Amino acid sequence: MSIGLNFSRRIRRTAYTNKVEQAGVSGFSVVNHMLLPKAFKHSVEDDYWHLRKDVQLWDVSTQRVIEVVGPDASKLIQLMTPRNISICKAGDCLYLPIIDQNAGLINDPVLLKHSEEKFWLSIADSDLLLFAIGLSIGLKLDVVVSEADIWTVSIQGPKAEDLISDLFGEQTRNIKFFKFDKIDFKKTEQIIARSGYSRQGGFEIYLEGKVLGPDLWDLILQAGQKYNIRPGSPNIIERVEGGLFSYGNEITRENNPFEMGLGKYCSLNGEVDYVGREALQKIAADGVSQKLKAFVFDGSKCPVCSSPWPLTLNGKRVGQITSAMYSPRKKANVSIAMIKREYWSCSDKITVDCMDGELRDGRIDTFPII
Amino acid sequence: MSIGLNFSRRIRRTAYTNKVEQAGVSGFSVVNHMLLPKAFKHSVEDDYWHLRKDVQLWDVSTQRVIEVVGPDASKLIQLMTPRNISICKAGDCLYLPIIDQNAGLINDPVLLKHSEEKFWLSIADSDLLLFAIGLSIGLKLDVVVSEADIWTVSIQGPKAEDLISDLFGEQTRNIKFFKFDKIDFKKTEQIIARSGYSRQGGFEIYLEGKVLGPDLWDLILQAGQKYNIRPGSPNIIERVEGGLFSYGNEITRENNPFEMGLGKYCSLNGEVDYVGREALQKIAADGVSQKLKAFVFDGSKCPVCSSPWPLTLNGKRVGQITSAMYSPRKKANVSIAMIKREYWSCSDKITVDCMDGELRDGRIDTFPII
Repeated sequence: MSIGLNFSRRIRRTAYTNKVEQAGVSGFSVVNHMLLPKAFKHSVEDDYWHLRKDVQLWDVSTQRVIEVVGPDASKLIQLMTPRNISICKAGDCLYLPIIDQNAGLINDPVLLKHSEEKFWLSIADSDLLLFAIGLSIGLKLDVVVSEADIWTVSIQGPKAEDLISDLFGEQTRNIKFFKFDKIDFKKTEQIIARSGYSRQGGFEIYLEGKVLGPDLWDLILQAGQKYNIRPGSPNIIERVEGGLFSYGNEITRENNPFEMGLGKYCSLNGEVDYVGREALQKIAADGVSQKLKAFVFDGSKCPVCSSPWPLTLNGKRVGQITSAMYSPRKKANVSIAMIKREYWSCSDKITVDCMDGELRDGRIDTFPII
Repeated sequence: MSIGLNFSRRIRRTAYTNKVEQAGVSGFSVVNHMLLPKAFKHSVEDDYWHLRKDVQLWDVSTQRVIEVVGPDASKLIQLMTPRNISICKAGDCLYLPIIDQNAGLINDPVLLKHSEEKFWLSIADSDLLLFAIGLSIGLKLDVVVSEADIWTVSIQGPKAEDLISDLFGEQTRNIKFFKFDKIDFKKTEQIIARSGYSRQGGFEIYLEGKVLGPDLWDLILQAGQKYNIRPGSPNIIERVEGGLFSYGNEITRENNPFEMGLGKYCSLNGEVDYVGREALQKIAADGVSQKLKAFVFDGSKCPVCSSPWPLTLNGKRVGQITSAMYSPRKKANVSIAMIKREYWSCSDKITVDCMDGELRDGRIDTFPII
């Protein structure tokens, strides 16, 4: 299901949009009021195989970077997340659930710690900037919160490490998962992290300076020729199989971190103070009524999931699917589903209504879907 | 310039999306993480003539409604805007610039006052909800802030009043501009306001209850047949000519209310307290360096403006265009431009670079463009 997207300045272009247009982009999504390339010349299935074998270059500038700077920077970050950020050292990335006063999820960014007084949040699709500003004004915190001039590209796939070391030196091989380091690009110092929205390994370059974008894009694509690189995008088959959740798809403000399986990231013993702690403690005590699970189902290739699909067992509601796609490797439809507690260990066949007239049968699986 | 939009649950469907698909929608925009129909079977020019002559039905559910309820509701609303809201009575709509601590615009919603303890904000494209929640948490205000189950349709055009009175009674003719009243729909009480994002006159129905959407849509389209109704959308030619600004297009956090010509809505004498007052007082004292103006230009029909177009005079930067379209009535391109102070009364020909290889000449005009 693809239809025209009407452009305007409000749907912001990135440092790379001219380049992805030249590369034949055929579909966009919109994230954080900005264009996210989602499809080029190849099918999603073809891109899936390529991502698992070679290397791809993604324009993920929509992962806007919120910079928090100042004496109260650390305090503000901690107030927004149940995860204890004292474990985070300069040079670390840290995945953070951000919650409201009811423990509802507002965003799930990656934190990059530069120093005690400087942090970046690489965000999912909601204006976390406005929440952070509102909170800091209300609490009179001594911080400056802004959207930084950062244009992130993601280099993902098994050949990403070879390509990055060709371009930026052998020492980049030593960057560990969810750590970041500095590289030189055209005499500017830039941040590179071993991270990214796939399970195939890779790096994200947090390019500072929009004008530098086109040259970085060309450099990577050119050097990547020997590794069969091509422009791509987060691949729904790969991310669903890998259990990578998407804010706005699997998770909304209706959900709490426990439903995502993030209980281990929630400090509940009172050692850190944050918004929503009481609500989260109550949820932890009561136990959650639903949780995200892998779900695999048969029938013909499923359509695009643009609103939740009900799951039923003998007419009773079991849960709902929020992201799904046919996997050519699994030769079945793979999906992420929010499943009610009483069905977590259900091994019966569950019925999916993809709202296309065909009822399909499936079963609960585990991540990663193998 | 139209290209595929990739769908997912994160790009939320409205109460009317099934209906607009049945009606042959051909293009969407995305506002507030939700689908805004932008094009149907006819051209923008054809829709423009039709809107000025007959009546159209628009799905503007993307104008999400933020409900603020509680003893501190009025206090929270006032804190977010420089406009003195004490002038607003129950049943009034009020256009509000919302600003941050630097007087940068965060949103420009329409406020609907139900009572001293209950307000709605019908918002433009940013998560004002998160700003309001952050601020209220920080200040420990006694309010509940939420996104309401409201799905707004807009009935715009010169025949809107006849249609609405056919459907909901003669008394609806007495609703004055920017006032709201109640109507009955399928034994539910619903809010209707005389308002909307065009200069042709009309109403907005704030339908509460997503399940009721399809029936309301059908009812209006059916009763509208005698008035030559058709599904439509905010029309860029009409709104540009009418000087209706769009948050994210003309206005961003880089801009302040004075640059929009909203000085008259800014209380600066200290009688009300709000975020950003000091910054706004300073801007008022210094005077602004740029302001939004009408701009009309010749040459061939301009492309879609998806990033600002520079305006120059003898090679010097004069300002930038942010929304533009060819007007078949004016037989010229019409646009909204941010113009530097020193050129406000410039009558010389100014050069537009639409970034399509053609340089076009134009001049500053006034709103409405006649």
